[in-house]
Parts: sequence; structure tokens; C-alpha cells
Amino acid sequence: MLELIRRDGLARICKLETRHGTLETPALLPVVNPRFQAITPRELYETFGFKAIITNSYIIRNDLKMRETAVSSGLHAMLDYPGIIMTDSGTFQSHMYGEVEVKNEEIVDFQRSIGTDIGTVLDIFTEPEWSKERTAEAVEVTLDRTKEASTRKGEMMLAGVVQGSIYPDLRQHCAEQLRAIDVDVHPIGGVVPLMEQYRYADLVDVIIASKKGLAPERPVHLFGAGHPMVFSLAVLLGCDMFDSASYAKFAKDDRYMTIEGTYHLKDMKVLDCDCPACAGKTIETLKAMKPEQRFETIARHNLYASKMEMDRVKRAVLEGDIWELAEMRCRTHPALLDGLRRLKEHREFLERYEPLSRDSAMFYTGAETLNRPALLRFEQRVKERYTMPKTETMVVFEGGEKPYARHWAAQMGEILKLADSHFFVMSELGPLPIELDEIYPVAQSIFPRIRDRDMTEKLREEMEDLSHRHQYSLSCMYDGQVTCEMLGMMSKGPGRFDLDVARVHAVADHQFGKGAAAALFSGKVELIKSKNTDKIRNVLVDGEHVVSMRAEDGFFTLRPPGAIRLLNAIPAPRLRAVVLDDSVPFNREGKNVMSTFVVEADAELRPQDEVIVVDKNDSPVAIGRMVLTGDEIGRFKKGLAIKVREGIKPSA
Amino acid sequence: MLELIRRDGLARICKLETRHGTLETPALLPVVNPRFQAITPRELYETFGFKAIITNSYIIRNDLKMRETAVSSGLHAMLDYPGIIMTDSGTFQSHMYGEVEVKNEEIVDFQRSIGTDIGTVLDIFTEPEWSKERTAEAVEVTLDRTKEASTRKGEMMLAGVVQGSIYPDLRQHCAEQLRAIDVDVHPIGGVVPLMEQYRYADLVDVIIASKKGLAPERPVHLFGAGHPMVFSLAVLLGCDMFDSASYAKFAKDDRYMTIEGTYHLKDMKVLDCDCPACAGKTIETLKAMKPEQRFETIARHNLYASKMEMDRVKRAVLEGDIWELAEMRCRTHPALLDGLRRLKEHREFLERYEPLSRDSAMFYTGAETLNRPALLRFEQRVKERYTMPKTETMVVFEGGEKPYARHWAAQMGEILKLADSHFFVMSELGPLPIELDEIYPVAQSIFPRIRDRDMTEKLREEMEDLSHRHQYSLSCMYDGQVTCEMLGMMSKGPGRFDLDVARVHAVADHQFGKGAAAALFSGKVELIKSKNTDKIRNVLVDGEHVVSMRAEDGFFTLRPPGAIRLLNAIPAPRLRAVVLDDSVPFNREGKNVMSTFVVEADAELRPQDEVIVVDKNDSPVAIGRMVLTGDEIGRFKKGLAIKVREGIKPSA
Repeated sequence: MLELIRRDGLARICKLETRHGTLETPALLPVVNPRFQAITPRELYETFGFKAIITNSYIIRNDLKMRETAVSSGLHAMLDYPGIIMTDSGTFQSHMYGEVEVKNEEIVDFQRSIGTDIGTVLDIFTEPEWSKERTAEAVEVTLDRTKEASTRKGEMMLAGVVQGSIYPDLRQHCAEQLRAIDVDVHPIGGVVPLMEQYRYADLVDVIIASKKGLAPERPVHLFGAGHPMVFSLAVLLGCDMFDSASYAKFAKDDRYMTIEGTYHLKDMKVLDCDCPACAGKTIETLKAMKPEQRFETIARHNLYASKMEMDRVKRAVLEGDIWELAEMRCRTHPALLDGLRRLKEHREFLERYEPLSRDSAMFYTGAETLNRPALLRFEQRVKERYTMPKTETMVVFEGGEKPYARHWAAQMGEILKLADSHFFVMSELGPLPIELDEIYPVAQSIFPRIRDRDMTEKLREEMEDLSHRHQYSLSCMYDGQVTCEMLGMMSKGPGRFDLDVARVHAVADHQFGKGAAAALFSGKVELIKSKNTDKIRNVLVDGEHVVSMRAEDGFFTLRPPGAIRLLNAIPAPRLRAVVLDDSVPFNREGKNVMSTFVVEADAELRPQDEVIVVDKNDSPVAIGRMVLTGDEIGRFKKGLAIKVREGIKPSA
Repeated sequence: MLELIRRDGLARICKLETRHGTLETPALLPVVNPRFQAITPRELYETFGFKAIITNSYIIRNDLKMRETAVSSGLHAMLDYPGIIMTDSGTFQSHMYGEVEVKNEEIVDFQRSIGTDIGTVLDIFTEPEWSKERTAEAVEVTLDRTKEASTRKGEMMLAGVVQGSIYPDLRQHCAEQLRAIDVDVHPIGGVVPLMEQYRYADLVDVIIASKKGLAPERPVHLFGAGHPMVFSLAVLLGCDMFDSASYAKFAKDDRYMTIEGTYHLKDMKVLDCDCPACAGKTIETLKAMKPEQRFETIARHNLYASKMEMDRVKRAVLEGDIWELAEMRCRTHPALLDGLRRLKEHREFLERYEPLSRDSAMFYTGAETLNRPALLRFEQRVKERYTMPKTETMVVFEGGEKPYARHWAAQMGEILKLADSHFFVMSELGPLPIELDEIYPVAQSIFPRIRDRDMTEKLREEMEDLSHRHQYSLSCMYDGQVTCEMLGMMSKGPGRFDLDVARVHAVADHQFGKGAAAALFSGKVELIKSKNTDKIRNVLVDGEHVVSMRAEDGFFTLRPPGAIRLLNAIPAPRLRAVVLDDSVPFNREGKNVMSTFVVEADAELRPQDEVIVVDKNDSPVAIGRMVLTGDEIGRFKKGLAIKVREGIKPSA
């Protein structure tokens, strides 16, 4: 079972405990051929730092000598490998060569008997060209075999494979059934043909359908995925483990793996790599090597390239820019671009795991960026949670050539305060209420100045939509050209638009849901602003500090008086996590909430969301931020669920 | 003066001879601070393989001790550097700190006196915020100083800098004037502020305007560009030299350079680099180092990262996919994407250097790919050079979900032959005449299946345009669903569409210009097809072998009878290169045409184009393919202009 260390949406860094040490995921498991090892398992462990490998139990079992050694000395001694060993079961052999001569129970027992850390069920490899009926039947066989295997696994961890070919409903069904079976790792199987045929859009559908059904606390292994060009996209979608035989297979054909694809040595004119295997070598020296030495050099290069990309992906998850990385990597081949573009169909699902905000700016790197779940959420919440004031006039500030219209608009503060108007700023995301122009992802995004048609069309549609929704006149102002007529129009009427007050209301509803602003700010509102930046820092209501506004992302952090106001106004389970009585005293002291101590949590909460920790009587216990999502909480048996910022003492 | 070794459009691999060895470009020259060298010039030469460095003559001259050493021992001995040393003149100091206390003639003489290989004029750094008037005046001063310097340079090579700020016309004017002055290297100066402000679209305009005016045989140096993230785009636009002080400057601030941008060490959570400087280190060991050791490690990493990217760029030029690389790299920041998008405005210029075809497939990696000059050329030539037959019906084959409609359409061969119709296939580039569906870039391109709006809109416009241009009915067929009605319509009438004959005519006009097909194929045409592929291989007319059709790109190679037919029908200078009498006997024997032996060449010829080598009387001498373009020929004093395939013996 995983412990979540860090996440960025579905992408995550986790720890998996095994009998042979802890595996940090995402991880690549090099495939070790039990018959022949160009690079020894010990070198993989010590020099490359691969803490886990995968080998094939079916091949070992079919070879009398290896079989005896494995049973008598154990797999780890046989391979001279001190780390984690996963074994496959012969399923892939059945895909390659037809039926295999072993039963599920036999291969599971065998894997256990040789000391495999993670064994695998003998599942049925569902081929992409199979009919739905045939696939459905095979899935049921796989599920039966998985149940059987789970009763025989003993101390061995067991991998229960998701099958279902290219049928998302079958994949999801299989995944949901697996969730109820006692297995430890969830490989997604039958995807090698999709990758070989460059069907990355289909691969995306398969991964998402599987993720929808699988248990979030178990690692997901994309079986047979070992090319670095696919790591970032697969990790973005929540894959944790990968395995690769390609490093050696490709090396045999003089094929060089890079994040940009695979190159045949004969087509390469320069060696542009400084990895430890290539450093100091030229394309000429490499081509002149004896075949065996060249094979070893290229195999080592392929491993380094894969390991480096996995480290790069891990870094992106830690630093919060896995989306940027995946968008960049998916430009290496039009078929990968299809994979990226297919994410548009899965935005709703991805949004459920999308954090409230990120440390780093969102980069617009092409029309595909418009599909990011952070943008979907922003648009949805503006539509659902934003209340348009009933004013005489609507003014849209357009920045023209300037990248950020709002920077210019902000300088219009004094004019704003005079006018009985409603103000929008024209951002690259469309016209947005000026009150929301400092929250993530609006204020933190960077766009190119030259627009593509997807963006232009989107802006046009948003403008049309806005003009239809607003009952009064729509005015546009370009590039700071405020005409006298315009000023006159804006200053007429008795009202007065207070941007600061409007901002805290709009942000509260956007962040916590409609009605939150009314609950938080009923009473005498006092805004404390930063002396340096003139931005809102704290909001006091009737003398109580209810919320603070964060400079980084423009959202609120709750203070206890604010939490109590929300609890009183918004019914359970919204915004809450209910903890066990055992946990209450610790959380009141400001200690974090562990996953196993949560009884129930609002399923609508997203990572990084503010959450009110309550006891079973709905009394406030603490305030914190979500690490897990509502549907993950309780399933993870290890690690944090909520990072507590402040405990709340009992009021009575 | 450069010798062109290999090109891909404006991007090129060249050799530059100097007194201290040959520099292969594109090349990065690390900046060496004469006062302090964390990494010694000798290490740069021997360990990193940098065959050229750049240092600052103004700083040396201002330091009494260094000045004396440099004059007495020479610059190479002083820096202990055996390679090529370029020096800057103090211009950048004037940009940073205001006026400098040296005259142009003094600093030029000084550079010569210390043995600089490539010295630089004391030009005026034109700042981006300067008015056009001020900039124009400064450009004239720079030009005067360059003229003065060119009379004093002696054996030293001289860099004459293009200035003109962000005004393309001033840049081009400055470049054109420099072309007439005896200098050896053309730096583009004054661009550091643009790069610092991430104004990459402006940078693109500046480079293109400069390239339009500059002498093609002299290397172009993008002054102050040393970040690997910009190399591919700059090389794509024809920059040959770069220099970098960033590797050390950034290292001082713990900043880590990568092709994806610069990261501050404190924000990095994992070290994902296996370069010789980083191999074996972790982010923790790096952070724990003493400042000096850390500085040296990061500086070395920055150099390795820069060198590796330059090697990668070089490889892309050699392998013909510099466009793909640049498109990928420009996804690392929205501002770089702006640079990529700005290329749309320069397609006409870029097309002049675009090769007839490439070895590798064109990858569609985003809407920006639509701006590629190869696509512009294809569209233009279809509009200008393709003659639509006068048939009853026009049929457009649409492939639906299939990536290549033409593959399906090809299976319709028998139906095609029956029908008195005109056939288009719906490709991702729009509807195209079926006769042209095997030439570059149509047949060699790979597109995603999921379209963006730019592509969808383009297809819609093309369809509309086609239906307006054709006088008869427009029919669409989807996905192989040939209805009976459709078949009836196609087979009516007396005519018969012979795809093979139509293909050779259409390709000839597309490749050589309108009228070429009539000239080549007047007489009894016989098509020899490949037994394996059933594709046209050779075309015989009246028993003479006039052209062969290449399997790789679908274009023709000329045979002597074909060349003679073209010469007779198409007036000079089209399709010709006139060579000196001295060259004639060699070329008749099949020897290549050297640049200096060409008197004149058709300025419309593109790289890889077939060319007929003629003597001054327009008699055919040889057939070959263009290496240089028509306007480059004669300017390069070294190297090939035309790769001759076949000499032609005198007919008399």
C-alpha cells in the first residue's frame, strides 16, 4: 500500500514498502532476462540506482536448471540482486507466442516459492483487435484468476492486472472489480500493442478508465511501458510504475532511446549525449565498436536516458509543473500529441484531483493548454459561483498588445470607485470579473502574445456569452484609451463599486461555494491591507479575524472564527472532514490528520483546499489543507490526509 | 569566409578557417573573463572541446598589467589557450555602464596587436527603447567605424556588428551596408535586452531583417546569446555563432541552465542530470557544497548543458529535422512560443532557402507547424502551377478517421480509370489533386488525428476555395463509402482519367514550373513502373529516358534528354547555372561545380533543386542538384555550389 508523499493532480510521488526495501514511485523497473544479463542486476542496483527490477517467472520455471536454483537459493540470490524483485507470469508470452503451458495457481505458487516480492496473476492479455464480447469474457477469466491468486499469495505482494483492451467500460469494470480483491499492485495490461502502434489517444483512454475504477492507495503499473518519451504523460495520469525491456531490445538493433524518440545509430550523425555511458565518445567511436561492446554501451545509455527522464518527471511533480513537462514532451511525435489532445475528453475527471493552486506559473505552450483542468474549474466556478452585481453598465477592459490587461486596469482604481458599473478585464482566458483577477490560475499564468485560433475563438465565444448574460450595455475599452464619454457613463448614477469588498465576496464564493461570502462576511467588515503592496491581507468581521488572503494564489486561508461561520451556515458534509474521537485531542493541538483517522470527508474537496476538521458532533477541531481528496481519504492506510494549520480549542 | 558543409533551410553546418584552426559552426564561444577564470581556457579547449572562446579586449586594455602581458606575450599565451580567440571591443560595457574611454581605432589596433583571431569594431549598442531617429544615427556611426576598422584590421579577422534596435528596416539597411565592407564575421548586436525581456518575437524579426541584408558567406554571430533554450530557434534562422557568459554568471547565483529554462538550485527538488559535472551527485550533495565548489560544479554543468544542446542542434541540421527540434524547444516558455509563431510573418523569406525535400517525415506538432515554409510552397505551387483538368465531376476522397485518405484512395485505382472525373484527396493539408499525393511534404508528413481549430479552419477554407474555383459539381466521399449513385456519376461520359499520366504531368509542372510537363513529355510517353511497388520509376519519351521519379520524395531526377528538352522550351536563366569555361570539361565528366566557377544561376532555384549546368552559350554541360541557392552562389569562395549527378557530352 502506498504512502503519498507529494502530488500534482493525479501525478504523485509515493513510497511503497516491500520485504526488500522501500520503492519510491514513480519508478522504472528494468526488465532482467533471467537467461542473459548484459548489465548485471547488481550493476542496475548499485551503479544505476534501480531499487527494483522485474523478471519473468514463466521463463525461470520452464528452465529446469534455473527453476531448481530459484527454488533452492531463492530468486534474489540467483540474480544476485538485493533490491525489490517483481515477476511477470507468462501472460506476455501468451500474447507473443500463443497459449502458455502453465496454470494460474501453479505460476502464483511458483512465484511465492522463489521469494518474489511482487508476483503477478496469469491474466489474459486482451488484444486491441478483439471484439467486445471476447474481451469481456477474457476479463471475467482474469478476475476469477485474480481472486484465486489472492487466496494463495501468502506473504508475497500480488499484482492484479487490469485488462479490457480498448473498451473503456470494460477497463473500468475490471478495475472496479479488482478494487475489491486483495491485491497489492494494479498493472494496466495489454497496452504494448497500443504503444507499438503509436495509439496514444487510445492509451490515454485506457489509463483514465482504469484509474476511475482502481483503488487509489495501490500503485498503478503501466505494463510494458519503458520508453522515456511516454513517462511524463503516463505519470500525469497517475501511473506509478513502469518496466522496460526496451533498453536492451533496442540496443540489440543499435537503437538509441531519447526523450524525443528512438534513433537508429546508422541515421545519427552526431552523438549529442553526455550521460556516463556516452561521455567522451563520438558517433564515430561508437559506430566503430565491436557489436558486443556497442550493445552494452547503447543499453547503458538507454538506461541512463530512461532514469534521467524519470528523475525529470519526479522533479516536475515535486515542483508542480508536470503539466508543462507533459505538454512539451508530447510535441515529439504527432501521435503523442493525439494523446495530449485526448485529455480534453477527460477534463472533468482530471479536475477532481487538480490542486487549488500551484507554486509555479501556468505556461501556455499551445492550444492544448486550454484543456487544462485548472482552466475548466475556473470557468465553471465563474459560471456557477459568481454573482454578477446589478449595475447600469458593464465595462470590459481590454489590454490590446499588453499581456496583462489587469495590470493596466488596476491603475484605473480611482475611476472604478466612482463608477456605478460592473467591471470585467479581458484576460487571455476570456473576460473575467475584475474581483477574481488575482486568483490562480488567472494571475499566475503566462501566455504568448500571438494567439492561435483556438484561443481567439474561445475569447470570441466568451465575449458573446457574456454579452448575452448581461442585461445592460457592453462596452469595450482598448489599451487605456478612456474617452470622456466613457468616463461620463461610468460616473453617472448613485452607486459606487468598491473593488476590495467585491473581491473578498467573489473570492469566498469561488473558493468555498455559493453562500460562503454571505456566511463569512455578515457583520462589520474591516479589510487590513499590506502597506507594501496595498493588497488585502486579512479580513476582520465584527472584530474577529475570519480569513487571510494569500499573496501567492489570491485565495483565503481560514481562521477559526471563519471556520465556525462556515460550519453554521453550510450543512455537512461540505467543507468538512470528520475525524475519530482518538484523533480529536491531537488535532486540536495542531497535529496533522492521518488518513486512517478520518471517518468521512467532503468528496468535493480538492487537493490544497481548506478543510474544517470536525468531530462526530460537527464541532470544529482544526483547520487545515487537504493532501488527499475526499474519495482517497481513509483508503490510504499510511501518511497524511490533512495538513493542519491551526487547532481549535473547544468553545465550551 | 564560410564553407557550407550541410544545410537545412537557413540552418547550416559550416567551416570557418582562422589562424588558430578551423571552427565548425554552429558554435558556442564561452566568454572568458580575463580577470578571473573559474574554468581555465585550457580546460574549455581540452575537456569540453570548445575550439573558440571570446574575451574582452577593453577590459584587458584597461588593466595595465594585463595590457602589458597581452602585448608582449600575445593573447593566446596570456590565456593559455591554443584555439581561436575572438575579442569584444567595449560596446557591451557602454551598454551596461555608459560611455567607454577608448576610440574605435585604438581598440581595433589593440586587438590586432595582441593577436586576436577575430576582433570587433567599437559599434554603438542600440537600445530597444531608443527612438528610430536616434537609432538611425547610431547605425551610421557604427557603419563609419566599421569602414574605419576594416582598413586597420591587417591579418586579423574583423567582426562588423549589425545594429538597428527593433527597427527591421534599420537592421536590414545596416546589414546591407555591412555586406559591402571588408569584414569577416557579422554579429547581430543589441539583442541582449530583448532576450532578458523575453521578447523572442522581436528577436525573430531582428534576426530575419539582418539575415536579409547580410552576406551569406559570412558567419552570423548572435551576440550575447548563450542560453541553450534559444539555440535551435536561432540556428533555424541562420545564426552560426553564439557566446555565453551566462554559464558562469548564472552559476554565481546557483542557477542551473537547461534546455527548458533556468532553475534556481533552491527551488530544485531533484537533480535530474547525468552530465559529467553532475553524474553521481544528488541535489542534497550539491546544496551542501561550499559556495566555490558549488559554483564550479554548476558552471561546468551549464557548459555541458549548452554544449550538448549545440550538438543536438547540429545533429538536427545534419538529419534534417531542425524545424521539429525548434518547434519542440519553443514550448518551454510562452515567450519562445511567440518567437515560433512570429515565423508565420517570415514564411516567404524562409521558403527561399527551404529544400525541395527532406529525408525525414515532417511532424505536425501543433498549429504552428502550419506556418512551415514547405507547406507554403506546396500550396503556392498547387495554386500557380497546377492545371485543373476540364472534367464533368470533381470528387473529393475523405479518409474520415484514417490518417491518410490517399492510402484508401489508391485502392480505388480501377474506379478512377473508369471515371470522367477529377479527383482530389482530402489530406490534413486540405484537398489536394490526387496526382500530387506522393510528393514531399504531403506523403512524408505525420499528423495527429485530433485536429486543432487552426487546422480545421484551414481545411474548411481550402474546401470552400476549391468549390469556388471548380466550375462543376463537388462531391465528397467519406471513408470508402462509394455509393451506387456515385459510381454511376463517375463512370458516365466518354473520357478516362489516367492517374499515372496525370501524375507525371502534374509533378513536372510542380517541380520545374508551368510548361515543364509539356516540354518534357511531348511525344510518345512510356512509363516504367517498379515491379515491387507498382510506382512510376522512369519516364521515356520517344524512346529516350527523360526523367526518373524518386521513391523517397516523389520528385523527378533529370536525365540529359530531359534537360535538353527543358533548355529548348524554357528561356534562360530559369533552371540553369552558367559556369566558367574552365569548369566545363570537369563538369562534363561528372565532377561537382565549385561555387567560384559559377557565373550566374537561376535565383529561383532552391536547395536540392535539379539544375542544368550550362556553358556561356546555354549548351548543357551537366545535371546536378543545388547545394547553394541562386543568390548564394558565387559569394561563397569555398566549397560546392552544385552536386553533379551526370555530365553531358557535347552534342556536336
